[in-house]
Amino acid sequence: MPTIAIIGASGYAGQETLDRVLRHPELEVVALGSDSLAGEPSSALDVRLNGSLPRFTPNAEAAAAGADLLFLCLDHDRAAAFAPPVGTVVVDLSGAHRLQDTSLYGAWYGWEHPAANTGWSYAIPELLPPAGELIANPGCYATAAILALWPVRDAIEPASVVVDAKSGVSGAGRELRRSSHAGFVLENLSPYKVGAHQHAPEIAQALGFPVCFVPHLLPVRRGLLATCYVQPTRDLRPLLEDAYADSAVVRVLPDGVVPELARVQHTDGAEIALFEDRATDRAVVLCAIDNLGKGAAGQAVQNANLALGLDETAGLLLNGVLV
Amino acid sequence: MPTIAIIGASGYAGQETLDRVLRHPELEVVALGSDSLAGEPSSALDVRLNGSLPRFTPNAEAAAAGADLLFLCLDHDRAAAFAPPVGTVVVDLSGAHRLQDTSLYGAWYGWEHPAANTGWSYAIPELLPPAGELIANPGCYATAAILALWPVRDAIEPASVVVDAKSGVSGAGRELRRSSHAGFVLENLSPYKVGAHQHAPEIAQALGFPVCFVPHLLPVRRGLLATCYVQPTRDLRPLLEDAYADSAVVRVLPDGVVPELARVQHTDGAEIALFEDRATDRAVVLCAIDNLGKGAAGQAVQNANLALGLDETAGLLLNGVLV
Amino acid sequence: MPTIAIIGASGYAGQETLDRVLRHPELEVVALGSDSLAGEPSSALDVRLNGSLPRFTPNAEAAAAGADLLFLCLDHDRAAAFAPPVGTVVVDLSGAHRLQDTSLYGAWYGWEHPAANTGWSYAIPELLPPAGELIANPGCYATAAILALWPVRDAIEPASVVVDAKSGVSGAGRELRRSSHAGFVLENLSPYKVGAHQHAPEIAQALGFPVCFVPHLLPVRRGLLATCYVQPTRDLRPLLEDAYADSAVVRVLPDGVVPELARVQHTDGAEIALFEDRATDRAVVLCAIDNLGKGAAGQAVQNANLALGLDETAGLLLNGVLV
Amino acid sequence: MPTIAIIGASGYAGQETLDRVLRHPELEVVALGSDSLAGEPSSALDVRLNGSLPRFTPNAEAAAAGADLLFLCLDHDRAAAFAPPVGTVVVDLSGAHRLQDTSLYGAWYGWEHPAANTGWSYAIPELLPPAGELIANPGCYATAAILALWPVRDAIEPASVVVDAKSGVSGAGRELRRSSHAGFVLENLSPYKVGAHQHAPEIAQALGFPVCFVPHLLPVRRGLLATCYVQPTRDLRPLLEDAYADSAVVRVLPDGVVPELARVQHTDGAEIALFEDRATDRAVVLCAIDNLGKGAAGQAVQNANLALGLDETAGLLLNGVLV
Repeated sequence: MPTIAIIGASGYAGQETLDRVLRHPELEVVALGSDSLAGEPSSALDVRLNGSLPRFTPNAEAAAAGADLLFLCLDHDRAAAFAPPVGTVVVDLSGAHRLQDTSLYGAWYGWEHPAANTGWSYAIPELLPPAGELIANPGCYATAAILALWPVRDAIEPASVVVDAKSGVSGAGRELRRSSHAGFVLENLSPYKVGAHQHAPEIAQALGFPVCFVPHLLPVRRGLLATCYVQPTRDLRPLLEDAYADSAVVRVLPDGVVPELARVQHTDGAEIALFEDRATDRAVVLCAIDNLGKGAAGQAVQNANLALGLDETAGLLLNGVLV
Repeated sequence: MPTIAIIGASGYAGQETLDRVLRHPELEVVALGSDSLAGEPSSALDVRLNGSLPRFTPNAEAAAAGADLLFLCLDHDRAAAFAPPVGTVVVDLSGAHRLQDTSLYGAWYGWEHPAANTGWSYAIPELLPPAGELIANPGCYATAAILALWPVRDAIEPASVVVDAKSGVSGAGRELRRSSHAGFVLENLSPYKVGAHQHAPEIAQALGFPVCFVPHLLPVRRGLLATCYVQPTRDLRPLLEDAYADSAVVRVLPDGVVPELARVQHTDGAEIALFEDRATDRAVVLCAIDNLGKGAAGQAVQNANLALGLDETAGLLLNGVLV
Repeated sequence: MPTIAIIGASGYAGQETLDRVLRHPELEVVALGSDSLAGEPSSALDVRLNGSLPRFTPNAEAAAAGADLLFLCLDHDRAAAFAPPVGTVVVDLSGAHRLQDTSLYGAWYGWEHPAANTGWSYAIPELLPPAGELIANPGCYATAAILALWPVRDAIEPASVVVDAKSGVSGAGRELRRSSHAGFVLENLSPYKVGAHQHAPEIAQALGFPVCFVPHLLPVRRGLLATCYVQPTRDLRPLLEDAYADSAVVRVLPDGVVPELARVQHTDGAEIALFEDRATDRAVVLCAIDNLGKGAAGQAVQNANLALGLDETAGLLLNGVLV
Repeated sequence: MPTIAIIGASGYAGQETLDRVLRHPELEVVALGSDSLAGEPSSALDVRLNGSLPRFTPNAEAAAAGADLLFLCLDHDRAAAFAPPVGTVVVDLSGAHRLQDTSLYGAWYGWEHPAANTGWSYAIPELLPPAGELIANPGCYATAAILALWPVRDAIEPASVVVDAKSGVSGAGRELRRSSHAGFVLENLSPYKVGAHQHAPEIAQALGFPVCFVPHLLPVRRGLLATCYVQPTRDLRPLLEDAYADSAVVRVLPDGVVPELARVQHTDGAEIALFEDRATDRAVVLCAIDNLGKGAAGQAVQNANLALGLDETAGLLLNGVLV
């Protein structure tokens, strides 16, 4: 049974990854890294965790514990500085290894990347499967936009694309900041990093052309919707349906049905829908995911499964018809 | 002191209009029309209302009560069938009199308009002031989109315009329907009438060209944000700042400041912001309003003030720095 | 493999029961009853359901389909009128068969019960296991209050007990009513049926003495907290810990840890905590559940498992550490 | 025209106090104190504020600016250390001067009070009007509980009283902490400081006997409900109605009508309702306020008005029938 360690296990991404691993029939946890909780039992993170799991150790120790695979759930700067043990599969949930052109980090992350991202593959299992041991797990907004647009990228006018996205607050992580304060978030909606969000170049890298992208913070805990506006050059529906015909993760909705956050929250699935605009020649492609599921931990485990040769959807949250 | 009657006083728009009228120093309520509450005291609508107000009467009686001005807060079909008393100012908050080309109602409202909208002026005080006694009060989404786009309409590529809008649930009124059920709305976000919403032709009529428009239902009670994507042909900021330089209602935000629902909720004001996209040649114009304020009752009272020759902002909710 | 049918499958309780049955390794669905959806495929209820399930049939047909067990998810009056097929296990999720003294229905339900509830057992697996084929599944509020209070019922002053409970809106079902309208629920909190809710006599029947009970409607989709105030006559902690020592469903929290809706939402588990009041001689016992999980469908399946001799927790949502 | 300064103007309480002062026809702002924003224009706090207001100054300077009245909006420890200028009216919105027996601070605030609270009057205008220049403004929970219970304190069994309260997140202020993180608050409900909250001794001091008090954090921005359980010794309704018969601030609701957060949010008013329990001999007194209104800034301005001999409700938010 392959072994895994989670580096940065006490943030949202780490905890959600642990959730999938605990549901996974073929993965064994050998180390939980957390510099802030080092020495504490797993129940210090969440009272639902118990004695069968190892105590938290410092991240460096967890990384050296000999696991077959590491989930890297750190900030992008610490992830960039992380030296992967040779022969270990690494799935990095941060942004550190997503952009091949690392000169872009200065402008979009406000942070100079210290090295090239050589050897890292940017992986979305349905479209861009992982290659090799070093896997850059996509950003939540980028995942939704790419799931919606990649299959139709050759059938739309590149200059026409607008991606208007909306995400629940867990997308910003567990860190305390003004924009995550409930007094700010509740009964509110706020656009942020308008035209300047770091997932824009990630989407551009996958599609091959730039897009105009604006994210908004929703007063919900989880879930993300990307509303993508495009000028099609031919019928887009067959392209979308073909792309996901065999997928257990991505569902292309029937004509006229809109995606809903509520149907993908707490899951690792995605919903995609296509609509025509009546007033103009535009089409609208919508994609809903859980930002912590398909947008982070779910996709990380899915990528890990592919890299380890396991069943692609093992450990994922994909079934259920909760109201 | 001018007298007013509210026709359809028991819906959201009617109650919010009453709220402003009660705050208004120069308007007197002579009749509250409601077919469902006819005969009941005003407290039957809300325990905060009391004996100094008239009892509810049937709408037809309220319309015939001799008021100087009628606020028409009915569904569009009942509003279209309403015969305004001669010599009375009418502010219609429904969609019945907004579209000059009444042949459009079939396609966009799913309802054939019975007559021409001759004599009705579509009025946004800052941009398109009311002319004459019959005033069509704009839709909430249309108000936000037009406030953002009308001042720049000659400085953008018409074919580039996308309006992605998000509204709180009160925009759908007090009627019970599946999409207003809290079990559907809470912790959810849902696009609806994608590319097919009836405010699209209203926006097109004001701008002079069609736009691609998609509304989304937010899990908030009040507030609306329109995120408008345009390809500018010159700098848009001076156009926006000039348009609203003298306005006590619309605030153009400083560079870098985003609009927030929380700052316009429970007010009749609007916030507008302009951003450039870093990745493409697009600009983003954002407009936030309260859908029941500037998006409905606040603008109705503002239009009424102009029609009656009163102070434009009398009765409006415009001050305050609530957190 | 035992077969089941769901009578009233298109409401919240029915859909959530179906959710657990679909996760269950040892139950087979033979009929989905719904008078409103009769003839429709299962996808008419939810786009996540597909062709492997039978079409909806009228409830009477579904009841006669020969299933080994029926989940009865109807209103209490239709459930009371339902004649269970001989030899079939029935789990009734309505209130119709909960009160042994059926004369109480007039006062608490505003409805006269047509018959005696002979043969029905009121069942909470951890405390009051089902006996026989006819099982009355407890109400959501009653479940939380009884889980908190039954183990300590002999160690508290009966006259001291106050149960203040708060529930998400899904507790009121899918029916459209003013109190479920999102414009009423969002950013609000409302007590209702103060001192007059029908779960009060249900709690009293289980405990053996009446309690003062007030429910409140929360602006959340799912989840329920009962805050129970008691005057203890001895230490209550050992009683609570002993009662649930072997339970995979109910967790007694360590000293100082409060229950949270977020940890039990979308699960069939329960969290219980005990606190002492510093100012008076009272203790506070708190219980959090998901109103649709342990408060309805989860407990129904748990009761069904016991009645059919299956693993008690098969099909239940009990694991996971989602944030 | 009396002059005022706000000490600690950049927190929630300070900003909301400023809101009322700006609406007040007879108060002039001479200084806005904020150590963190010192030197900045008022717009640094909120884009709605503008040049007619003074820039922020350090709190010590603002206190020495010669205002007739100071609103003290600091943490309790800084408020306790504050030396009021002689001859100045001070309204302290913190907890520092509320408890006459300052030995209680150690146990309930986890902080030893440095001095006696001589000269400070604990003031609720309707019940306990301010006396003298030094005014301790009550806590939000305490205000709601005292409004509900003080008028009936001689008609209930003291040992029977339970206060179960629920508050929006703004009650915890603008400071960043885990319990105010939207990822924790949204779609959640959490009891906290169970039986150990510092408003318990404040309620006890006003009533003359201790009560069992538990607060809960609601996923709403504003608003607070106290559900108070009592064993009455006679009819409580006349006592409540008499107490507030002349009040423009507190409304005793008709029989059968429950208070709602939505009707008091963004106001300085209060709603009180009385219900009998059907199952026991208890009565339930409910009180809803806005925690930042009657629970903080609204009451502070109301107390200030009384101390300065102005109209009691000048500057308060009391009218309106917003939906």
